[in-house]
Amino acid sequence: MPTTSPHDPKARELFDEMARWPIFDPHSHIDPTRPAARNFDEVLGYHYYTELAHSAGMPAELVSPNLDPETRVRNLAGYLDRIDNTVQYSWLLEIAKTFHDFPHDRITPQNIGELYDRAQRSSSGEAWDREVWKKSQLEAVFLTNEFDDPLEGWDPQKYVPCLRTDDLVLKLHEPTTVDRLRRATNVDVQDYATLRQAIGVLFERFVKRGARACAISLPPDFAPYRATAKRAVTPVRRAIHQMDQRPDEHDEVRQVVFWTLAEFCAEFRLPFDLMIGPIRNVYPAGVAGGRDLFDRRVSLHGYRELFNHFSGVTFPVSTLSPDAGGELVAYSWIFPNVIPMGHWWYSNIPAYIAADLRARLQAVPKVKQVGYYSDAYKLEFVLPKFNMFRRVLAETLADDAVRGQGWSIDRALELARLILLENPKRIFSRAGAAS
Amino acid sequence: MPTTSPHDPKARELFDEMARWPIFDPHSHIDPTRPAARNFDEVLGYHYYTELAHSAGMPAELVSPNLDPETRVRNLAGYLDRIDNTVQYSWLLEIAKTFHDFPHDRITPQNIGELYDRAQRSSSGEAWDREVWKKSQLEAVFLTNEFDDPLEGWDPQKYVPCLRTDDLVLKLHEPTTVDRLRRATNVDVQDYATLRQAIGVLFERFVKRGARACAISLPPDFAPYRATAKRAVTPVRRAIHQMDQRPDEHDEVRQVVFWTLAEFCAEFRLPFDLMIGPIRNVYPAGVAGGRDLFDRRVSLHGYRELFNHFSGVTFPVSTLSPDAGGELVAYSWIFPNVIPMGHWWYSNIPAYIAADLRARLQAVPKVKQVGYYSDAYKLEFVLPKFNMFRRVLAETLADDAVRGQGWSIDRALELARLILLENPKRIFSRAGAAS
Amino acid sequence: MPTTSPHDPKARELFDEMARWPIFDPHSHIDPTRPAARNFDEVLGYHYYTELAHSAGMPAELVSPNLDPETRVRNLAGYLDRIDNTVQYSWLLEIAKTFHDFPHDRITPQNIGELYDRAQRSSSGEAWDREVWKKSQLEAVFLTNEFDDPLEGWDPQKYVPCLRTDDLVLKLHEPTTVDRLRRATNVDVQDYATLRQAIGVLFERFVKRGARACAISLPPDFAPYRATAKRAVTPVRRAIHQMDQRPDEHDEVRQVVFWTLAEFCAEFRLPFDLMIGPIRNVYPAGVAGGRDLFDRRVSLHGYRELFNHFSGVTFPVSTLSPDAGGELVAYSWIFPNVIPMGHWWYSNIPAYIAADLRARLQAVPKVKQVGYYSDAYKLEFVLPKFNMFRRVLAETLADDAVRGQGWSIDRALELARLILLENPKRIFSRAGAAS
Repeated sequence: MPTTSPHDPKARELFDEMARWPIFDPHSHIDPTRPAARNFDEVLGYHYYTELAHSAGMPAELVSPNLDPETRVRNLAGYLDRIDNTVQYSWLLEIAKTFHDFPHDRITPQNIGELYDRAQRSSSGEAWDREVWKKSQLEAVFLTNEFDDPLEGWDPQKYVPCLRTDDLVLKLHEPTTVDRLRRATNVDVQDYATLRQAIGVLFERFVKRGARACAISLPPDFAPYRATAKRAVTPVRRAIHQMDQRPDEHDEVRQVVFWTLAEFCAEFRLPFDLMIGPIRNVYPAGVAGGRDLFDRRVSLHGYRELFNHFSGVTFPVSTLSPDAGGELVAYSWIFPNVIPMGHWWYSNIPAYIAADLRARLQAVPKVKQVGYYSDAYKLEFVLPKFNMFRRVLAETLADDAVRGQGWSIDRALELARLILLENPKRIFSRAGAAS
Repeated sequence: MPTTSPHDPKARELFDEMARWPIFDPHSHIDPTRPAARNFDEVLGYHYYTELAHSAGMPAELVSPNLDPETRVRNLAGYLDRIDNTVQYSWLLEIAKTFHDFPHDRITPQNIGELYDRAQRSSSGEAWDREVWKKSQLEAVFLTNEFDDPLEGWDPQKYVPCLRTDDLVLKLHEPTTVDRLRRATNVDVQDYATLRQAIGVLFERFVKRGARACAISLPPDFAPYRATAKRAVTPVRRAIHQMDQRPDEHDEVRQVVFWTLAEFCAEFRLPFDLMIGPIRNVYPAGVAGGRDLFDRRVSLHGYRELFNHFSGVTFPVSTLSPDAGGELVAYSWIFPNVIPMGHWWYSNIPAYIAADLRARLQAVPKVKQVGYYSDAYKLEFVLPKFNMFRRVLAETLADDAVRGQGWSIDRALELARLILLENPKRIFSRAGAAS
Repeated sequence: MPTTSPHDPKARELFDEMARWPIFDPHSHIDPTRPAARNFDEVLGYHYYTELAHSAGMPAELVSPNLDPETRVRNLAGYLDRIDNTVQYSWLLEIAKTFHDFPHDRITPQNIGELYDRAQRSSSGEAWDREVWKKSQLEAVFLTNEFDDPLEGWDPQKYVPCLRTDDLVLKLHEPTTVDRLRRATNVDVQDYATLRQAIGVLFERFVKRGARACAISLPPDFAPYRATAKRAVTPVRRAIHQMDQRPDEHDEVRQVVFWTLAEFCAEFRLPFDLMIGPIRNVYPAGVAGGRDLFDRRVSLHGYRELFNHFSGVTFPVSTLSPDAGGELVAYSWIFPNVIPMGHWWYSNIPAYIAADLRARLQAVPKVKQVGYYSDAYKLEFVLPKFNMFRRVLAETLADDAVRGQGWSIDRALELARLILLENPKRIFSRAGAAS
């Protein structure tokens, strides 16, 4: 058995059925032109392994991009025993067993060579992509596309485009952002009016190519308010031309660009994924992808004006700080357009998933819950991450619904199917979109 | 069986015994002149159902007060399947089964007519009040009385008056507040001195009519300090005469009225229920009763001066944000006059109750815990809400006390009885009151 | 059986093995010249009992230091039934049974005399110290030494010195602090230069005497930044000479002294224990040791500059507010030098330990976790507190590792041994120290 079923018999029954279902994954960082890993370095290069190993004592140089892949893998393997308690390690082992027939129970410096060889697919990349896709029973996986992504070369029904907008909101003042925007849109962006025009071009193109969400990650100090283009016109122009800005002007720019994006989400009927919490580069000496953290003092109350104003926009919300889950339950219980979405990053471990999930199942309308997304960079991770969630879901339903309320197994499975498959498909279908 | 007993045998044994006990409910919004629901619209009109259905897609107009009751019920019934996972839905089903012999396991558009007919009591209202009271084994239920409530027409031993003071503290500047206060007290309120005199009249009257608590809900930005009448004299006069106020003056008014109430609580030996956290009207387009939320960034540290100064006043505290429970445990562990009171509103679901309750049972002196209150608007809700709590309590005691520490069932039941019945009776007895 | 083993068979198997292990306790307040209690007043005098009894209604005078020990004990015994639900009470009973052959299941006014007599050791103090040490299988216990502690008269391999620095950072402006510092170091402290010199003398002496950590508790409003001696030179001089200071100057002094301590920790390879959260004297009318609380609005983000700058210093971190645990998991998952350390004070009850521990075991490299410390004032408490933790650890491993992931009992025990024994020994070994 590649995957550990739950020990409790009812939970196992639920899990085993869920494990037969397809996967619809509404958020990932998969590269659709190279979705599965070509070698084990592309698996072990996931920031969870490099950052945990580094946190456990591995010098960052040992996984430097300047090294060759096999060396990086061998280096990291020397530290895996220090993190073999983590849930992230369990994903790794599930990948090794499920996809590479790895026969051992731990990955060690002794057997890493064997695993590296087994996972070598550089000569058969696309066939391997298809195999992982099939074995995972993937139905669709959402991408994270930079605004200037050409969006060509793949089937957008399977690899669903999603417009990621962090750079536009948070880095408009950086020269590359405006240059990229001009090139991507053929609009000569010089001020707020042309910026707005360019953003319209982006939405048009993304939607035409099958995009089903707009997404952004926002720092804890961001609290959106209704920005007026009028007031922002000067700061935006100054940002576009890389002129000095006062902090309040910089915030004005973030606000007006963000609000403009929400307006286009309304116009194009795109859900706007809000990923709330990260502060970038808190630990600059960390490994790539392992430098961001958060300040837990953040509240969804800061988003009330947004949620009220854009009552027609669906906001699937992920929160980063594990203690913020209760607020998300309450806000999705009240606001029709707020959707609790999956379990994210530092909150994506079974202990926090179990606590959040239990509360959501008890207090948020079932039709509003998007159970899970993988956030994966390589296809191989979709399955073990979803299985982790399915396991917690099975245990929660066995305890609270089947034993706790006398539900039948079928009724519990109906609820599971809703939050794993039907809800995300419906919520991200751009229902009512006229385009 | 109308109620689902816990699955675990020890927990079931504990629950089944508790289910035989009377209920003493130290906080509700029951109307004592019309306590039980005259029809099923008065049950389904509870904000939990309208707000959850609205959050799940039901337009607010479908439950407009302008519609007739049966239409509202039929409209809402069309959305109940979207929220049938919630604990609130389980209360509804328990009401239907316990009080109306409803034979089905779900409430649907097909059987809602049957349920509506079964629950029709408009011709036998008072007999129905008595039947619900008896079936629930109610001993007493505390009310939430506006300060100008005439407090007449019911037995205050059963329907215990409680002076609710939100309007005095938070809305003194609104013209109706002062008018109501003048009429209720026959005091010509013009300044702080006469305001104080009027409040004294209120306390006198409430206590004479059997009131056993003063109560208020406070927003997260409120942090009481010792207000001096001297400094507040001008802002209070300006508020009473509806003159413009600066924000700091408005706060000064809130502070001095609140502090004055605490002084009267001390004088009249009334516990002062603090319900900390709600922000009103965060979602103005919501259904009635479903517009309030919170900002989780709140701390009991803001109440230290109050707790210290009024060492003779008992403060039963409810906190709204689910993540605030740990602080309440610590503050009630240290301050003799701080009492952790029940599980409130957004924190009143089994997932949060279980976490909070377990911690309270492990760290707060048992004589200080007020287990639960219903917060109900109609009598029918008291029983299923208390049963929800009793179930969590039974499971917690079975795990932590009986299996965890080898307690006998009887010892566990003693503790349950203490926090469900004996503590609230003693704490709200106005012990030592001279009046 | 003095100790209740877990009820679950797998957990019991794990616990029973752990209960045979020695204890390595990396933080306590033991007095090495009088480690075990000479009488039961020294047990019941632990602030947990006096503060919980006081919170439950006992007047503080009943445990006044002016009373004789037996009277205090008899007074407090009259209130123990009010707190016999608490985990702290369970430690007490375990002490009575394990160390004093107390045959009863509750401590009452009727049998307190018997217990007092059984626990009387004034004539055989040192033999008793040895007996408690042996029965607890103690290997080493860390102390909390004031900076002017002479550090003589005991074996520093067993009673490990630890430099506590609260007074230097938070109370430099108080005359006694500087006087004590001058006497302890023979440095004529007059300004920042001589202050620094004196602190160097302290580190030198502590390390020479076997100190293995520097420690401090910090209030929630403290957020360390890189203080420059240059800017601080005047405020420090003013503090040393007890001249008036503005709040910003006072903060400047705290900052520069704290940063200086961290520099010496780097130089002497001492881990720097950060105990984050307490606010002193929130409830001034409380019993001794029972007056401190916290404001839960605190974030480790405030420590980023410290963690980055002192990458060579290990920071074992304890957080006070129960809801802060998730942030500590994330910061120790990313920063190599941040260690989640035990479960502290208001967070040291099974409900919070279980939640925090589960998350740490799932997401923090196993080699970085310091499972537990007793924080005890008397040796007798080390065993029951460690047993409480071992019980939670056994239950967590039985659920999540053995049943959840199919680990063998041996593998689960390896992990337990690592966080209970091997990690603390290695982390506090001053590895790499040149001195």
